[in-house]
Amino acid sequence: MSFRFVLPALLLAVSLPGHAQAPVPPAPNGIPLPADYRNWRVIAVSQRTDNNTLRVITGNDIAVEAARAGRTNPWPEGAVLGKVVWKLDKDPLWQPAIVPGEVVHIEFMARDSKKYAATGNWGYSRWLGASLKPHGKDAGFAQECFGCHTVAKGKDYVFTRPAPMP
Amino acid sequence: MSFRFVLPALLLAVSLPGHAQAPVPPAPNGIPLPADYRNWRVIAVSQRTDNNTLRVITGNDIAVEAARAGRTNPWPEGAVLGKVVWKLDKDPLWQPAIVPGEVVHIEFMARDSKKYAATGNWGYSRWLGASLKPHGKDAGFAQECFGCHTVAKGKDYVFTRPAPMP
Repeated sequence: MSFRFVLPALLLAVSLPGHAQAPVPPAPNGIPLPADYRNWRVIAVSQRTDNNTLRVITGNDIAVEAARAGRTNPWPEGAVLGKVVWKLDKDPLWQPAIVPGEVVHIEFMARDSKKYAATGNWGYSRWLGASLKPHGKDAGFAQECFGCHTVAKGKDYVFTRPAPMP
Repeated sequence: MSFRFVLPALLLAVSLPGHAQAPVPPAPNGIPLPADYRNWRVIAVSQRTDNNTLRVITGNDIAVEAARAGRTNPWPEGAVLGKVVWKLDKDPLWQPAIVPGEVVHIEFMARDSKKYAATGNWGYSRWLGASLKPHGKDAGFAQECFGCHTVAKGKDYVFTRPAPMP
């Protein structure tokens, strides 16, 4: 096999995984989906009885180290908090247990006091459902997030309190 | 300063972190606390309404890779599932949100079909509260865990269903 056949075959093989899964579009404010969010460590969990969801709150390394050291008011520059939100389901083997159903959305808060001064120094992003459709029609969607988080202004706009992990 | 003074000082400095925190005793069946469990990745979360607790279920690398690939019946040898169990608390800034309170216990299931054939091929361990006191008076405590997990025999004794993370 000559070189001019081997090189294209090699390029095809290398690029196949990228083609197999369509890239996720960024949020309307330009924030991209953090590529490795599935590998982030746990900061807390929660259940919301007002919209019947279970959540896990994770963070990138900067956020997790800050959470464990108690440096969360303010959180450090570069910290990103992530959240996966699931509908409620029942464990068929243990009826009183509430477990994750389908994904409602995944969402993130990224600390950058230069870029996101207008929304409390946090850049917001959210992707909907299993297909990860970007949330929001335009960059203005972040005002909706910020509006709700204003209640937590005294905690640097973050509701999450890092859960103890002894 | 002569060498005979420098060496002991160096050894003291290196060993100080070990002295600062008392080592956690192993479970009565000899299973040690996984040193890095706080860094494990998320497999699922749950809430139990029968004992009012919130939980995060994590795993070592073998367990997380198996969960993501759907290889969970049986789980592979070497997989370890971890769980942190918290009392329920309310978010003072968002009353309908249930968030982690104090730690009830942390617990683990370790897959080893040679060592733990008598308890469904899983080795159980649990440490109580913030002080991580080993649970159980003797190695027989695992029969209590196994007894309850027998309900999940058709799922390789594991209640947890890995939660979708798109």
